[in-house]
Amino acid sequence: MRTDRRPDKMKLGTLFHPTGNHVASWMHPDSQIDAGTNFRHYVQIAQTAERGKFDVVFLADALAVRDGKPEALSRWPQYMAYFEPITLLSAIAPMTTHLGLAATATTSYNEPYNVARKFASLDHISGGRAGWNVVTSSNYSEAYNFGREGHFEHGERYDRAAEFTEVVQGLWDSWDDDAFVRDRKSGRYWIPDKLHTLNHKGEHFSVRGPLNVARPPQGHPVIFQAGSSEAGKELAARFAEAVFTPQHTLAAAQAFYRDLKGRMPRFGRSPDHLKVLPGLNTIVGRTEAEAQEKHRFLQSLIHPAVGLEVLSNAIGGFDLSGYDLDGPLPEAAYLGKPNSGSTTSFANVLSWARNENLTIRQLYQRFAGARGQRTLIGTPEQIVDDMQAWFDGYGVDGFLFHASHLPGGLDDFVELIVPELQARGLFRTEYEGTTLRENLGLPRPVSRYAGRL
Amino acid sequence: MRTDRRPDKMKLGTLFHPTGNHVASWMHPDSQIDAGTNFRHYVQIAQTAERGKFDVVFLADALAVRDGKPEALSRWPQYMAYFEPITLLSAIAPMTTHLGLAATATTSYNEPYNVARKFASLDHISGGRAGWNVVTSSNYSEAYNFGREGHFEHGERYDRAAEFTEVVQGLWDSWDDDAFVRDRKSGRYWIPDKLHTLNHKGEHFSVRGPLNVARPPQGHPVIFQAGSSEAGKELAARFAEAVFTPQHTLAAAQAFYRDLKGRMPRFGRSPDHLKVLPGLNTIVGRTEAEAQEKHRFLQSLIHPAVGLEVLSNAIGGFDLSGYDLDGPLPEAAYLGKPNSGSTTSFANVLSWARNENLTIRQLYQRFAGARGQRTLIGTPEQIVDDMQAWFDGYGVDGFLFHASHLPGGLDDFVELIVPELQARGLFRTEYEGTTLRENLGLPRPVSRYAGRL
Repeated sequence: MRTDRRPDKMKLGTLFHPTGNHVASWMHPDSQIDAGTNFRHYVQIAQTAERGKFDVVFLADALAVRDGKPEALSRWPQYMAYFEPITLLSAIAPMTTHLGLAATATTSYNEPYNVARKFASLDHISGGRAGWNVVTSSNYSEAYNFGREGHFEHGERYDRAAEFTEVVQGLWDSWDDDAFVRDRKSGRYWIPDKLHTLNHKGEHFSVRGPLNVARPPQGHPVIFQAGSSEAGKELAARFAEAVFTPQHTLAAAQAFYRDLKGRMPRFGRSPDHLKVLPGLNTIVGRTEAEAQEKHRFLQSLIHPAVGLEVLSNAIGGFDLSGYDLDGPLPEAAYLGKPNSGSTTSFANVLSWARNENLTIRQLYQRFAGARGQRTLIGTPEQIVDDMQAWFDGYGVDGFLFHASHLPGGLDDFVELIVPELQARGLFRTEYEGTTLRENLGLPRPVSRYAGRL
Repeated sequence: MRTDRRPDKMKLGTLFHPTGNHVASWMHPDSQIDAGTNFRHYVQIAQTAERGKFDVVFLADALAVRDGKPEALSRWPQYMAYFEPITLLSAIAPMTTHLGLAATATTSYNEPYNVARKFASLDHISGGRAGWNVVTSSNYSEAYNFGREGHFEHGERYDRAAEFTEVVQGLWDSWDDDAFVRDRKSGRYWIPDKLHTLNHKGEHFSVRGPLNVARPPQGHPVIFQAGSSEAGKELAARFAEAVFTPQHTLAAAQAFYRDLKGRMPRFGRSPDHLKVLPGLNTIVGRTEAEAQEKHRFLQSLIHPAVGLEVLSNAIGGFDLSGYDLDGPLPEAAYLGKPNSGSTTSFANVLSWARNENLTIRQLYQRFAGARGQRTLIGTPEQIVDDMQAWFDGYGVDGFLFHASHLPGGLDDFVELIVPELQARGLFRTEYEGTTLRENLGLPRPVSRYAGRL
C-alpha cells in the first residue's frame, strides 16, 4: 500500500437504489421491502447518510419501467415502481441540513426550462444542496413513453445534452445575485439591469428566458455526469463537477482519472474542479469471515431467473434460457453486440467468462450481485486500506457508495467504515460548509453577465 | 339572508401567491418580503392553513416571467421569481399532515408521462394529498421558452388538454392497487397480471406506459380545473373534481354552478363529484371601520405604474400611459380585444368603468388590488353572512381563499373567519379523513382495469 498521503480529503456520495443495489436486496431481512412507496424509509437513510457526513445522496432515474420477462421482473422489482427523484429529494430537503441532494434528469425527454427551474427551486428549498446528473436516454422503453419510435442516436444525444446543459446554466444566470433589493421605501423590488434574457437559438433548442427563479444559492447547482464513452468524457470535461464511473482496477481508475482531468484545460477548467467518484459496494464484517458470510448470504438470494435476465441484459440480450447454469457461457454469446449504453459491462462480463472460466451461475452471481459496481468484502481495516490506496494513488477523489441493501448496508458503512476513514484523517468529521459545492470544494460559478454593463 | 341550511359542509382551499394576492402585497409590513426564495415562509403558512383546517393549498404557476414594462414589473414582483410548485409542495409535504397539496401543471409544455409521475410521486410522499390543476398555456412568453413561435390555438389547447388528462389518468392505473405482494417466501414481488400497459396512440400523444410509480394512495390525485370558457367548462365537466372560478355576484355564481354540474351527467358523472370553489379575498377587522381602514391602507400601497400595467393587461394591452389618472377610461379602450385567457376580466373592467363611472385610478384600484377576485371587507359576522348566503344558495360548494398578503392575511382568516364558520356549523372542526379526496368528499376512482382478467 502507498503511504504518500494526499493533502485533501475523500469525497463520498451514496446512491439510494430503492431497496439497495443488489438485485436480491428486497429479499434481505435488513432491507425496507416497500421502499418504492415508503417515504419514511428515505428520510431514515438520508439522515443516516448525513450522520455519516456523506457529501451527497444521488438518485438514479429512468422514464419507463424496465423491459424484460415478467417471470424475472416480478422477482427483481428494482426501478419498476418508485418515487420520482425531484419530488423525493425536495421532500427530503427539510428533513436534512447538510446532505447534498442530486438526481438524474435526462436531456432526451425533458425541456431545459423545466429542468433549470426544478433544480434551481430545489437549490433554494435546500439552502444550496442541489445537484443535477446530466444523462442522455438510450433505451426504447423511454422513447415509447414520449411519442418517439426510437431513441436519439449516440452522437445526437450528446450534442443535445451539451446544448441542453448550456441553456440550463444560462437560465440559472437570468437574475444577478444582487438583483433583488426589496426596498419598501422606494417601492422597488428588483433592479431592471440585473435581469438577463438568454435568447438562445440553437440546433436543438430555442429558449428565450429569463428563468422565473432567482439565481440559485450555489450560483449553479452542482453538475454530475456518468458516461464513460468518448462523448461522455468530453461532456464531463466541459461541464461536470463530479463524475460517477464504474472502475474495477486501480490502474484503469488512474488512467480514467488522468484522461478526464487532462481534457479539462481545453475547456478552460481546472482539474481540481471535477471530482472523480467511482462506484463502490462494500460488504463489511467485524471479521473477514463475517463479511464473506454476509456476501454469501446475499448471493444465495438471487433467483436463477433474475440472474439469467441480468446477465442476458449485460451481454446484449443474448437469451441464456436452456443452457446449463453450471456450464460455460456458450460461444455464440461472444458474438453479440452490447446494448447501447452498456459497452463497459459487456466487455467486463465476457472477459471474466473467458479469463476466469466462470460458469453461467458464477457469472451472474459476479455481475448481478453488485450490478457492475466494484465490491469490497472484508473488515473495516481491509476495506479502508483499499479505498486509501485508490485515493492516495490518485485513481479517485472519493467514491459513490452503493449499499447492497437499504437501510442495512448503509448502516454498516456508517458504523464501521466511516469511523475508520475518519480515524485515518481520510474523511471529514464535520461538514466544511453549508452548501454541496462548499463541501465538495468546488468554486461558486460567476454569472456569465458579471462585469457587463 | 337565506336560512335554509345545506346538509353538507363548506370546502376551503387557499392559493399561496408568493407575498399575497394584492399587487402591492410585498409592500405590506405583514407580508414576507422575500417569499420567492424563503422556504420557511411556505412551511409557516402551510401550517397555518392546516391549523385552519383548510382542505387544500393550491399553487399557481407559469413557465415564464411576466412580460411588461420594467418600471412596473420591478415594482410588482409577483410571479417573476419564485419556487417551482411541485418541488415546493413536495418539501411542504413532510412538514404537514392533513393539508391537500395541489399545483398547476400545464398540458401545453409538459409531457403526460412526466406529469403523471410527479403527481403520483407527490401523492405517495404525502400519503394521498396531491391535486393537479389542469391548465392550458395561452401566452407567448411561455411558448418562447419551449421552442415555439406562438402558443397553441384555443381549440387545439383544450383538445390537447383532454387527451393529456386521459393519458395521465390511464398511466395512474398502470399498477393495480394490490399488484405488490412483496412475498419473500415465494420470491415474488409483484403479480404480472396486475401490471397494465396503456398503449395510447392519439392525436397529440403517443405513450406506451406503464408508469413506473405504484398506483397513488388516492387512486388518482384530485383533478382541479379553472377555465370558465365553453371549452373549459366541458373539460371540467368531464374530468374536474374541484373548479376554481372568479364570480362576483351570487346570481352569476348560481348560474355557473348549475351550468357546470348540469353538464356532468353527459359524461356519466354525478354532480356531487365536483366541488365549485369561487375565488374569495377577505379583509377582516374586529369592526367594519377597522376592515375598511386595512383595505384603504393596502390600496394606498399600489404604485400608479403598477396600477396602470395591471389595468392595461386586463383590457387587452391598451396603453394607458399619458391619460389622466383621475379621468375616465378613454373610449378607444373599449374597442380593444381581450388577451387570450382573460375574457372575463376584460368584460368586468369595462362594465365597471361604464356603469359605475370609475376613473382610471379607481378602476386600477378595484381591479389591481384583488386582481379580479371578489373581495369581502368587514367583520367576521358580515363576511360569514355573505359566504353562508352563497353556500346555502348553492352558488358554491366552498371557496378558494386568496390572502391579500401573506402571512398576515391568512392569519386573519384563520383567527377570525374560520372560528365563525365553525361556530355556525358551516365548516369542519376536525379533518374527516387522511387524504385530500376523503376531506373533499370525493370517491376514490376505480381502476379502468378493475374486473378485467
